[in-house]
Amino acid sequence: MKYGIVAFPSKELQDQANAYRKRYDPHYALIPPHMTIIGPFEIEGKSMKEASDELLKVASEHKPFELNVTKVSTFAPVTNAIYYKVEPNDDILALREALSLDFISNEESHQYVPHITIAQKMSSGEHDDVIGQIKMAGMEHTETIDRVHLLYQLENGMWTVYETFTLSGGR
Amino acid sequence: MKYGIVAFPSKELQDQANAYRKRYDPHYALIPPHMTIIGPFEIEGKSMKEASDELLKVASEHKPFELNVTKVSTFAPVTNAIYYKVEPNDDILALREALSLDFISNEESHQYVPHITIAQKMSSGEHDDVIGQIKMAGMEHTETIDRVHLLYQLENGMWTVYETFTLSGGR
Repeated sequence: MKYGIVAFPSKELQDQANAYRKRYDPHYALIPPHMTIIGPFEIEGKSMKEASDELLKVASEHKPFELNVTKVSTFAPVTNAIYYKVEPNDDILALREALSLDFISNEESHQYVPHITIAQKMSSGEHDDVIGQIKMAGMEHTETIDRVHLLYQLENGMWTVYETFTLSGGR
Repeated sequence: MKYGIVAFPSKELQDQANAYRKRYDPHYALIPPHMTIIGPFEIEGKSMKEASDELLKVASEHKPFELNVTKVSTFAPVTNAIYYKVEPNDDILALREALSLDFISNEESHQYVPHITIAQKMSSGEHDDVIGQIKMAGMEHTETIDRVHLLYQLENGMWTVYETFTLSGGR
């Protein structure tokens, strides 16, 4: 089973992201707008509940983090995905590091770039057509995130939330 | 803002429900398969976080409940919706009653029937065409639900999870 840990931003930011996603993101219907903390992974040697309980404990030691969107950016030419760039900060990186427990098995080959995807799986032509306009529209937004969620993926690709981890600690 | 409190059944049951929903439920992409505990409602006089904290406290006093699907049924002719019928039991009804705090404002005019929708918004013709076959295929399934979720609705109709309430009490 595939799992992920994500933060859902405020309804306001989700609604704005969805205005683009509806048109430009074929994953629009699979999950609400989100910032991935730890990407698709498998859980090894533990049940979902055992793993979730351990992750919950770790998350509860951490404090809420600032989600600061500074602009629109793109992963092209590596992949034609456009996103709200979230400024990395120590709280986000420390949370991600702490949640990366040894039963979490994923094969990440690229550096972690905190972001909220608003467009993906486009042809290069389509990407190049829209990137200028979306960048120009831009996005600046700051909010505090006080919870992240553990999700699992259904056979149809949709994601269901299993548990909510409240960031209520001091770390 | 519209809220709901729902239980997501196991991945197994969600995958089975989605096989029908994909074809027969226009809400397929808005939310994973679920059993509504308290239907769309508004929160009055409290922030989402305040309300959620109170609901969490109430839910934590309650114990996990048995989700026992016994058959396929339909709300026709009232509305052309087909669902997995969940046998009502004291735990489900007590949880729903307890979570119905006074800041929850909804206008329910019909009796609560625990269910998992697998088809809706059909024409009467379409409904009558498929109900026999889906009923015949049937569904019998029992599992234990140990958590419910507070969700809010985005502008596009999709639902995002805000909080998970673990049913860890003895009531």
